[in-house]
Amino acid sequence: MRYDGRQNDEIRPVKITPDYLMHPAGSVLIEMGDTKVICTASVEEKTARHLTGTGQGWVTAEYGMLPGSTGSRKSRERNKVDGRSQEIQRLVGRALRSVVDMEAMGERSVWIDCDVIQADGGTRTASITGGYVALVLAFRKLVEEGILEKVPVTNYISAISVGIIDGEVRLDLPYEEDSRAGVDMNIVMNDAGEYVEIQGTAEDGAFTPEELRQMLAFAKKGCEELMKIQKEVLEA
Amino acid sequence: MRYDGRQNDEIRPVKITPDYLMHPAGSVLIEMGDTKVICTASVEEKTARHLTGTGQGWVTAEYGMLPGSTGSRKSRERNKVDGRSQEIQRLVGRALRSVVDMEAMGERSVWIDCDVIQADGGTRTASITGGYVALVLAFRKLVEEGILEKVPVTNYISAISVGIIDGEVRLDLPYEEDSRAGVDMNIVMNDAGEYVEIQGTAEDGAFTPEELRQMLAFAKKGCEELMKIQKEVLEA
Amino acid sequence: MRYDGRQNDEIRPVKITPDYLMHPAGSVLIEMGDTKVICTASVEEKTARHLTGTGQGWVTAEYGMLPGSTGSRKSRERNKVDGRSQEIQRLVGRALRSVVDMEAMGERSVWIDCDVIQADGGTRTASITGGYVALVLAFRKLVEEGILEKVPVTNYISAISVGIIDGEVRLDLPYEEDSRAGVDMNIVMNDAGEYVEIQGTAEDGAFTPEELRQMLAFAKKGCEELMKIQKEVLEA
Amino acid sequence: MRYDGRQNDEIRPVKITPDYLMHPAGSVLIEMGDTKVICTASVEEKTARHLTGTGQGWVTAEYGMLPGSTGSRKSRERNKVDGRSQEIQRLVGRALRSVVDMEAMGERSVWIDCDVIQADGGTRTASITGGYVALVLAFRKLVEEGILEKVPVTNYISAISVGIIDGEVRLDLPYEEDSRAGVDMNIVMNDAGEYVEIQGTAEDGAFTPEELRQMLAFAKKGCEELMKIQKEVLEA
Amino acid sequence: MRYDGRQNDEIRPVKITPDYLMHPAGSVLIEMGDTKVICTASVEEKTARHLTGTGQGWVTAEYGMLPGSTGSRKSRERNKVDGRSQEIQRLVGRALRSVVDMEAMGERSVWIDCDVIQADGGTRTASITGGYVALVLAFRKLVEEGILEKVPVTNYISAISVGIIDGEVRLDLPYEEDSRAGVDMNIVMNDAGEYVEIQGTAEDGAFTPEELRQMLAFAKKGCEELMKIQKEVLEA
Amino acid sequence: MRYDGRQNDEIRPVKITPDYLMHPAGSVLIEMGDTKVICTASVEEKTARHLTGTGQGWVTAEYGMLPGSTGSRKSRERNKVDGRSQEIQRLVGRALRSVVDMEAMGERSVWIDCDVIQADGGTRTASITGGYVALVLAFRKLVEEGILEKVPVTNYISAISVGIIDGEVRLDLPYEEDSRAGVDMNIVMNDAGEYVEIQGTAEDGAFTPEELRQMLAFAKKGCEELMKIQKEVLEA
Repeated sequence: MRYDGRQNDEIRPVKITPDYLMHPAGSVLIEMGDTKVICTASVEEKTARHLTGTGQGWVTAEYGMLPGSTGSRKSRERNKVDGRSQEIQRLVGRALRSVVDMEAMGERSVWIDCDVIQADGGTRTASITGGYVALVLAFRKLVEEGILEKVPVTNYISAISVGIIDGEVRLDLPYEEDSRAGVDMNIVMNDAGEYVEIQGTAEDGAFTPEELRQMLAFAKKGCEELMKIQKEVLEA
Repeated sequence: MRYDGRQNDEIRPVKITPDYLMHPAGSVLIEMGDTKVICTASVEEKTARHLTGTGQGWVTAEYGMLPGSTGSRKSRERNKVDGRSQEIQRLVGRALRSVVDMEAMGERSVWIDCDVIQADGGTRTASITGGYVALVLAFRKLVEEGILEKVPVTNYISAISVGIIDGEVRLDLPYEEDSRAGVDMNIVMNDAGEYVEIQGTAEDGAFTPEELRQMLAFAKKGCEELMKIQKEVLEA
Repeated sequence: MRYDGRQNDEIRPVKITPDYLMHPAGSVLIEMGDTKVICTASVEEKTARHLTGTGQGWVTAEYGMLPGSTGSRKSRERNKVDGRSQEIQRLVGRALRSVVDMEAMGERSVWIDCDVIQADGGTRTASITGGYVALVLAFRKLVEEGILEKVPVTNYISAISVGIIDGEVRLDLPYEEDSRAGVDMNIVMNDAGEYVEIQGTAEDGAFTPEELRQMLAFAKKGCEELMKIQKEVLEA
Repeated sequence: MRYDGRQNDEIRPVKITPDYLMHPAGSVLIEMGDTKVICTASVEEKTARHLTGTGQGWVTAEYGMLPGSTGSRKSRERNKVDGRSQEIQRLVGRALRSVVDMEAMGERSVWIDCDVIQADGGTRTASITGGYVALVLAFRKLVEEGILEKVPVTNYISAISVGIIDGEVRLDLPYEEDSRAGVDMNIVMNDAGEYVEIQGTAEDGAFTPEELRQMLAFAKKGCEELMKIQKEVLEA
Repeated sequence: MRYDGRQNDEIRPVKITPDYLMHPAGSVLIEMGDTKVICTASVEEKTARHLTGTGQGWVTAEYGMLPGSTGSRKSRERNKVDGRSQEIQRLVGRALRSVVDMEAMGERSVWIDCDVIQADGGTRTASITGGYVALVLAFRKLVEEGILEKVPVTNYISAISVGIIDGEVRLDLPYEEDSRAGVDMNIVMNDAGEYVEIQGTAEDGAFTPEELRQMLAFAKKGCEELMKIQKEVLEA
Repeated sequence: MRYDGRQNDEIRPVKITPDYLMHPAGSVLIEMGDTKVICTASVEEKTARHLTGTGQGWVTAEYGMLPGSTGSRKSRERNKVDGRSQEIQRLVGRALRSVVDMEAMGERSVWIDCDVIQADGGTRTASITGGYVALVLAFRKLVEEGILEKVPVTNYISAISVGIIDGEVRLDLPYEEDSRAGVDMNIVMNDAGEYVEIQGTAEDGAFTPEELRQMLAFAKKGCEELMKIQKEVLEA
């Protein structure tokens, strides 16, 4: 039994609050257990520089943590962005772009900002899951304003962490488990059951093919549950 | 009548939610109308470098805005902090230090982080008003842990904006008024009726001695109301 | 009696040397007691970016201190500008813009550079008082060259510091007094007797409404004397 | 058939030249097809700061590309390191640390520098494969000098890329294939057949569980062949 | 006798390998004794900004050292370029520009990158000597492609170091001599026997007019020998 | 005849004002024609890091230009120091260190700051000539305070520029000549008639051995005249 009472293949309680802020085109507060991330989607009426004139749009992501979001205060990234933040925001951007029809969205950009208010493990996967909903809300606004005909999104997409702790495969790791996991894996899946990203790292030692198989099975279950919640929020 | 129905000398609805986050020693969400700021107070067991060995502690503040907090997306301050942020965080630090007994707090630091989640004018004054509550909560925790004997704070302190719009003096400006104010003034007062800071700027033209007198009167009323709310939260 | 023999409401000896340097359109050396600041005004034939196409010009200021200008050597601001310098240059820019007719000056910029050669308190107010003269000299040059019809300046403007030291209100603080002042205030006034900026900070404790009234009275006297000297230099 | 005549599960010709440079403790030039990387291992007699006093050592990696290494000249990373470089050097460091006995190496650091002289795909995996050999050579030198009793390395480790191009799974992608791969995966394996890192990204679309299975099989074959070459070099 | 058996006026064995890399228009590996520098020349189809519209091209140089190139690991210049690197790359650029007909090369740029793989003294002079060959190779490619009619280079140019060690004037200093030289001089000459650059520094003390005369004589001999080798490589 | 009426081997009028500022240990204003540089020498009671514990001191120099010192306003070096400034300050530091007895000065540092108030050619050589006087004044102060027994300086040192303009060798170039000089040379000499630095650059073309001989003769004359003025100032 895990310290919070969950089964090994069980995700934490999830809550997605849409339209959380008044200024951005799309915004949510996503809570997965004690992890809380504000995800916003802001539209800019020009595309990325390398796409100018191609008729294609772009989706880019930035990730940050409030100083008070972690156990010991985290310094602001005011002089340079640390490697971890860059890695995460590149991951979030790639994941969301994989379900967007860049031509259909036209020559504009959507900035996805994922700001961690409170961290308790799984902030990057929550950023993808929440960022997806903010993105769709922003596109809906463009549809309402008559700028787009329909929301240029092809699939649902969500992400979850899975790892090996004390020799057991476990789904959706909170900080307490994540910090002592021998293997840490993040999986991004779409609603066709396909992988968009697999990032598995042995922090300590290595993992066998059989352990890999089990982690992938747990992650599939978690991603499907998250996509169900996304649908409920977006169809409400 | 103002666009939100307030009288000229009336402040917006205020709400201070204590213990808003789980990690920092002290934290609040302060809402003044649509302006929302997370203020946290984190304790570090060493004082500022220039005070090492003096027996005195230090309180320092940092201020930031989430990219999605404003009308058009605000770029992150990742390469340098803009002048406005620096000016604000220096103001917040000075204001809070004016009510702390640096010797009584001992050779430690408290970091006050003020992060604007949603901006609608008055973010710097809300940071002071909310930061004060977070600071007291953090000190209380040190008292509970037996590290301090009592909360080393000498006075209440709060802050409010006042300005001249369309020739009228008005209290607690939301963005709509702030952006077209001819004069913009921020006042920080303590509960002895004394000034800790007066910053008055004529954005357009200049202001007369009589206008100054009326702005100071309105500000006094506003600061007193805010200190009453701080007391209710802290005595709850 | 003050350590340099002045009365509490007396300013230091002031000297403004016009046309101090050969390259900039306008330049002065301003000396207030031992404080010496070179102020230059350089014209650039394009306005600030946000004003392009509006027909309006812009005045911007930068402030620096030579490493040898202070008691212990000051490091150069080569990697980042410190918060104090930014605060000061924003103040100088705002103050000077308040007396310039931006439309009359046309779509060009004037850069005001204030470089402290020797610091003994009051460098920011000397920068405003001296920068004003450099600015007018630069505009006169544009008039002489037939580029402008007349100097697009509406008022005189000057600035002075005032503070509370050992319980006494004093005008125009040198470093020795400034460093131990409980309250430090900078006032910027124009020749209509109006305030353009009031910045009052209690470094230690707070100040009462009566103390505020007296500081404002002293500052008025000081600013008027400085404007008289500006007039003498400009009418010579 | 691939454009360079290889089978889909075939790696490029590999050459590892040990002791390539005269100054570093360990160094190799690794060539995989036209990709050429200089890997060096430099020993510093202090461990990472967070490990001081723990008795443990540290292995860290840095990655760079010469401006002339790529098709169009790559700007030097002189102001900031781009996200890609950071991601790669973190990967290389993690991979090599997974086979080092940190206690046995003592409180010292080894810096692995991977500098790409010529890039034609697979530079990050070549950095791991070559960096491993440089690391062992550096440790051997410490053994020769009597500083260590034996080489504190527990396993062989190598890395290879695999991807999906034109619907086919292919091993060890050169730039021509990498640039148009729909899926790009990097696998790091040790000689126990375990995974140390799996990073799979769908650049375009997504990949199915069956495609994942086949990519893992190809990668296993590639890593085993590379470890055979490492052994030959190190046992020569 | 010198520690490597050379006469005082003798240069080290020199080897220039042309077309060392596959991507840049021109590239060489130059070896002078144990000093090894990769020099590449990359063409960009726009000239320097200050020359746009003048019909003239530009040649610019950058210089770097691999971390493993020196006796103790050299940190990467990732945050700022150190003064020495800047000084060297400015020298290399000036030297090569002195033999290029900027009008004949047209409005394009050539970037000369000099990256030190292994350092043993004389890396800046090797960069000039090797950079010259890479530059000519790049221009030849433009001639082959029909973009230029002929190679727009007016002279050969080479560079060598000379110094005073233990009271003796010596040519082409390796690190062992360079590090304890009282005087260190770099000379850049063309094949008309003219000086393009003389940089002589007394690291310790000063040097007499007679010592200067002898250093210039040795340098002349060295530069002539290097230009002979450049010709052999380019005429092969 | 030159445009300012001087002979080809004649220097400009020179004026050195000692004790120009009140705070630094040593300071001068040096004027060479219209070129004006403030040179200060500040003492710090610790030596350079690499000399700690060796009993030796260090002299380091920094160089800057005020924005208003040049014909068109020069941007402040607030984000990075440009290559030219670095080159100059390294030159000034080396030159002054060549006449200081590092052991006799003890484990302390002297910072030489050279700030150009007005530039009209020759700012780097004026910095050396003026910096020398500031340095001696600072050392004298240490002698007066009983910290040093005698001024730890072994020689006088001065510097001058020389160049080829319109085919003629000329001494001490003002900006008008410097900007169109084909060859530009800076010479640093001591009072034993020895060279400490020779930096000669052909900006356009190259220079012959005979031209070099004549430039060295002119420079010798100029340096001797400057050292005579230094002596007069220091013996006054």
